[in-house]
Amino acid sequence: MTKTIFSITFAIIFMHNTQAQSQTPVSSSNVRSTKIHTNPITNNVFQYGVAEAFVNGAYKGELSVAELKHYGDFGLGAPDNIDGELTIYKGKVYQTTADGKTREANKDLKTPFAVVSFFNEASHDVYSISNTVNTKELYNKILDKLPARNSIYAIRISGTFDSVTTRAFPAVDEKQAKPLAQLMDTQHLFKFEKLNGTMIGYYMPAFLSGINISGLHFHFLSDDCKSGGHVIALSGHDLKITISPMDGVTVKIPSTPQFNSFQFKQDNTREVKTIEKGSN
Amino acid sequence: MTKTIFSITFAIIFMHNTQAQSQTPVSSSNVRSTKIHTNPITNNVFQYGVAEAFVNGAYKGELSVAELKHYGDFGLGAPDNIDGELTIYKGKVYQTTADGKTREANKDLKTPFAVVSFFNEASHDVYSISNTVNTKELYNKILDKLPARNSIYAIRISGTFDSVTTRAFPAVDEKQAKPLAQLMDTQHLFKFEKLNGTMIGYYMPAFLSGINISGLHFHFLSDDCKSGGHVIALSGHDLKITISPMDGVTVKIPSTPQFNSFQFKQDNTREVKTIEKGSN
Repeated sequence: MTKTIFSITFAIIFMHNTQAQSQTPVSSSNVRSTKIHTNPITNNVFQYGVAEAFVNGAYKGELSVAELKHYGDFGLGAPDNIDGELTIYKGKVYQTTADGKTREANKDLKTPFAVVSFFNEASHDVYSISNTVNTKELYNKILDKLPARNSIYAIRISGTFDSVTTRAFPAVDEKQAKPLAQLMDTQHLFKFEKLNGTMIGYYMPAFLSGINISGLHFHFLSDDCKSGGHVIALSGHDLKITISPMDGVTVKIPSTPQFNSFQFKQDNTREVKTIEKGSN
Repeated sequence: MTKTIFSITFAIIFMHNTQAQSQTPVSSSNVRSTKIHTNPITNNVFQYGVAEAFVNGAYKGELSVAELKHYGDFGLGAPDNIDGELTIYKGKVYQTTADGKTREANKDLKTPFAVVSFFNEASHDVYSISNTVNTKELYNKILDKLPARNSIYAIRISGTFDSVTTRAFPAVDEKQAKPLAQLMDTQHLFKFEKLNGTMIGYYMPAFLSGINISGLHFHFLSDDCKSGGHVIALSGHDLKITISPMDGVTVKIPSTPQFNSFQFKQDNTREVKTIEKGSN
């Protein structure tokens, strides 16, 4: 196709929030609360935010902890300005901060990235491991048991941990937000020993890489709800692994200026472009 | 981390569909219909399938047209084995086949990839174009009017078309499914002239590339519902453009063997891996 010179003057009438000017009546409003359909989505993972933007500095929280609870009773996330880590378990939201403390999060705390679901006790496979396993052994066993690699699973692992190493970031200065990969030396690591607790997380398929984090991703919460964080390493025994297959994922898109102005990598393949315009 | 030799014998008890063997009672079942929570998702785009798998040959349909209607009254998609194109408008699903005909799709027809939403008359921006525009001019004008590039918009364009070129593929032999890019010479192109109709489609942000098709994507349906297909090119005037912002997208994952065995490109960046394991 030859280059089109864009010289025509358009008679564009902007009718947002004004009375329609066309011959047929046009309803126009920016009130989103009317005539909104609720979709009959079941057994899905709800995700607020997009991982690629989050790990590259879009740390500003927007969805409150109170709102997040509407979408699930199980899951993980990050607090506003990555002030620690969030773990959602049995309907409560816990925040682990860089001082190593875990406590129930304030309902007004906002998150820039969180992944939750309703953990369905009635629909899952359960496996037990009695002997001691390390991180790699546990993760390999879980990956081995997944019915399909191109699907999503909510995964819960409860039992006795000889040790669990977790991490939490200290809150970043909003105006100097660097990508997370450049903040690794600021993370605080905690090693908890000889305690009972639960790993809460997901297996996400390769096609959700960028949107979410593909593969296995867990946060930890001790039985007394006082220790937690993003799981880095572990050694445990007498573990009960519960794998719950999910039908899909809902991604709710942030509307923060930070998110809106984020430059995502473009990886639209030439193939797709060819298909769209119908020729090579 | 040094290589871990995986030599420990695991006492894995597979308890799926059997009585639990552990000390505490464990409910276990593969019946997914019990205790499934419905998420309160509103104003979202519902998508069945993943574009990367679909354009590379996962053409086997699974979700029926009857089911698809539960998730939206507006949208586009592909029929089982890409036997033409699907256009969803005012709650009806139309199939345009390679013979150039458009008719209401059979409710039992299955789709491997479809994108639908409830078109919300109360929440949108409306623009009018009176003079004649071509494809590029129209698309540039729409892109220019989008409030945010990192969001999703349902877009409807109704008016008078001097010409609309659409395409539809003939059904592929399931056993010899090649990627869509290798089937371009089998597509049938149709040029409809001097007719009134509607373009039905979406703007998808860059971060959904691979999951969906980023940028603008439209199907066409004439006012008499007898002409349609995937829009390749157009010339039109007296067009009314309605742009409806969406809050997010729900991706329902297929469970066909074709989809389950599809090898997605891995584009997990080293950054994300570093962040996950907490060290470089």
